[in-house]
Amino acid sequence: MTPSTDRPLNFDVLHEDAHTEARVGKLKTLHGEVDTPAYMPVGTHGAVRCLTPDQVQATGSQMILANTYHLHLRPGEEIVNDLGGLHEFMGWSGPILTDSGGFQVFSLSDWNKMEESGVTFKSPIDGKKIELTPEKAIQIQNVLGADVIMAFDHCPPYPATEEEVADAVARTTRWTERSKNAHSRPDVQSLFGIVQGGVFEDLRQRSVEELLPMDFPGYAIGGVSVGEPPEDMHRIAAFTAPLLPKDKPRYLMGIGVDRDLLAGIRAGVDLFDCVLATRNARNSHLFSRTGTIRIKNQQYERDTNPIDEHCSCYTCKNFSLGYLRHLYARRETLAGTLGSIHNIHFLQDLMLAARQMIQLGEFETFHDNYPESFRDWRRESF
Amino acid sequence: MTPSTDRPLNFDVLHEDAHTEARVGKLKTLHGEVDTPAYMPVGTHGAVRCLTPDQVQATGSQMILANTYHLHLRPGEEIVNDLGGLHEFMGWSGPILTDSGGFQVFSLSDWNKMEESGVTFKSPIDGKKIELTPEKAIQIQNVLGADVIMAFDHCPPYPATEEEVADAVARTTRWTERSKNAHSRPDVQSLFGIVQGGVFEDLRQRSVEELLPMDFPGYAIGGVSVGEPPEDMHRIAAFTAPLLPKDKPRYLMGIGVDRDLLAGIRAGVDLFDCVLATRNARNSHLFSRTGTIRIKNQQYERDTNPIDEHCSCYTCKNFSLGYLRHLYARRETLAGTLGSIHNIHFLQDLMLAARQMIQLGEFETFHDNYPESFRDWRRESF
Repeated sequence: MTPSTDRPLNFDVLHEDAHTEARVGKLKTLHGEVDTPAYMPVGTHGAVRCLTPDQVQATGSQMILANTYHLHLRPGEEIVNDLGGLHEFMGWSGPILTDSGGFQVFSLSDWNKMEESGVTFKSPIDGKKIELTPEKAIQIQNVLGADVIMAFDHCPPYPATEEEVADAVARTTRWTERSKNAHSRPDVQSLFGIVQGGVFEDLRQRSVEELLPMDFPGYAIGGVSVGEPPEDMHRIAAFTAPLLPKDKPRYLMGIGVDRDLLAGIRAGVDLFDCVLATRNARNSHLFSRTGTIRIKNQQYERDTNPIDEHCSCYTCKNFSLGYLRHLYARRETLAGTLGSIHNIHFLQDLMLAARQMIQLGEFETFHDNYPESFRDWRRESF
Repeated sequence: MTPSTDRPLNFDVLHEDAHTEARVGKLKTLHGEVDTPAYMPVGTHGAVRCLTPDQVQATGSQMILANTYHLHLRPGEEIVNDLGGLHEFMGWSGPILTDSGGFQVFSLSDWNKMEESGVTFKSPIDGKKIELTPEKAIQIQNVLGADVIMAFDHCPPYPATEEEVADAVARTTRWTERSKNAHSRPDVQSLFGIVQGGVFEDLRQRSVEELLPMDFPGYAIGGVSVGEPPEDMHRIAAFTAPLLPKDKPRYLMGIGVDRDLLAGIRAGVDLFDCVLATRNARNSHLFSRTGTIRIKNQQYERDTNPIDEHCSCYTCKNFSLGYLRHLYARRETLAGTLGSIHNIHFLQDLMLAARQMIQLGEFETFHDNYPESFRDWRRESF
């Protein structure tokens, strides 16, 4: 692949909305470009569930996320490296982002112990103790070889007291500094810092102020989508995003519900990731402009309509609700494939609409009138 | 789709091998053409497991098989019809063949009772008694709407005594006559008769002689691949196929092992179907020119090679054995998808090689020197 830039990351804001913080941008990596705001599907074990890379690309996805925690456990970063690095390994030639693994250590491990050095947890595979430190998390990500890698942070649970969150912010700052010092491949991988602070605005502000001097090529807002009410998440995104450098990409972690994406875009966020699109698809919940479709319901048994008449994905162009219901009822794995294609395409279409609405100066109207505004956006605007 | 012929089925033998019974032909249906010898992947519930129709087509498959028994049970042929008929239902615009359901009634039902009228069995869904007769089997297939449909036959198990098989041959003749009389859509669907007779050549001959006067547009050799040794199957195919009309397609049912396919082609067979390619793929057995690969074996952990260096399928072009092993070990459904793409493509490539070798007059050499002959067939011949 020809490098699209001589730096590992290049970000240009192409258009700023006059009415909100929303912006349209272009993220350039050594593995290709990403139009922002962008939604990244998640390939936990180095594969977006049920989909080939070709199918992921056909949904309009330009960049994907893979999980450091899972890939470290199996097959292990050394095997990924022996198989050519993450891009070659999973057959995805476009940009990839890896998380730091910290979130999974806290949320998925039965047992974990946090110290200043890092976190120790019991491997779910063989019960062995594994220590994840800022240095180790970065080293694993350096070996995996994603285009964007994440600093090792401390993401407290929700709810947490202001004192607990303040501690997490302070620890995150120290761990982020160590992450930066450990990063051995800044020529080909871009390390982002992660802002913590929970639902407390002053702590968010403090976290931003402590991270900005480290001058990362991009910043994430972490510690959201951990159980807090959507209003709090929207408020924190709207408060925090504008504190981050205008000329650098902003990434709101773990967000993938349509209204939350729009709230994030409105706040000035450029990147999102979430497993919901694919997980919901496997659990027979399909997105549509008229609300979620629970495809196993008998009402769809003889329904010749597509999931969403406004959708142009492979699934909607070729298959009826009745057929999809049959596949889900028979537990055919093709159900998960066709559902995931649609759900991801739905979100990518929403991103495309948002980008175009921002460029037309109509994003606020689009946001305020969602989902009605999404039904006919192609027709009304062009 | 524009009809490719004014008859529902048109078959032309384009080339006959000088040394064997093998021939190259073209089967034309109202839904498109099929180059023969052809292998049909199986879409039991109206979907080839783990694959979209686009992916099936990309393997080189031109015609697929769907199971009347399963589709009758769920969702039921009336729902398939309400959803536009089988082609529209499953998003496959090419030719489709449905079996009669008889084989599954005998092999899958806990309980079944055979009488002269037909077979009664207990529904595996709700325990209700269901009767399948020649008339009913054809009526279901008429509603489903496949291009080629099959007469309702009696396929005895293996081993069976000569007397039992003789009874089955006689019953098959009576049921086939009734199937023909029940067929209500001969203008758009072609009914094939099925030859029985087990491993007994005189009974095969008798079955053929009883069916030929009914003048079907095509004939199948059934009652094979039911547990008999491969040599018996090869012997029966070689004995029976040449008894069938030269100008009509011959279909050897349930055959999909590479050497069995080659034996069938050598005998003068034009059509094959089998679930093995997809079932083996899901069970982590992958075909290759150097033997079956058990992909979960640790030896492939860091193997950067494709499954088969001579294969040009999507899987072999994009993924290493090491990555595939990882997907299988993680039980990612993408493993079944990539494995099925490869296994079907492998058999379609074998069919393509066979067709070209027949045209070049080299089929017997190709057959006798398989699998070595398959490794470099592209290079040596063109």
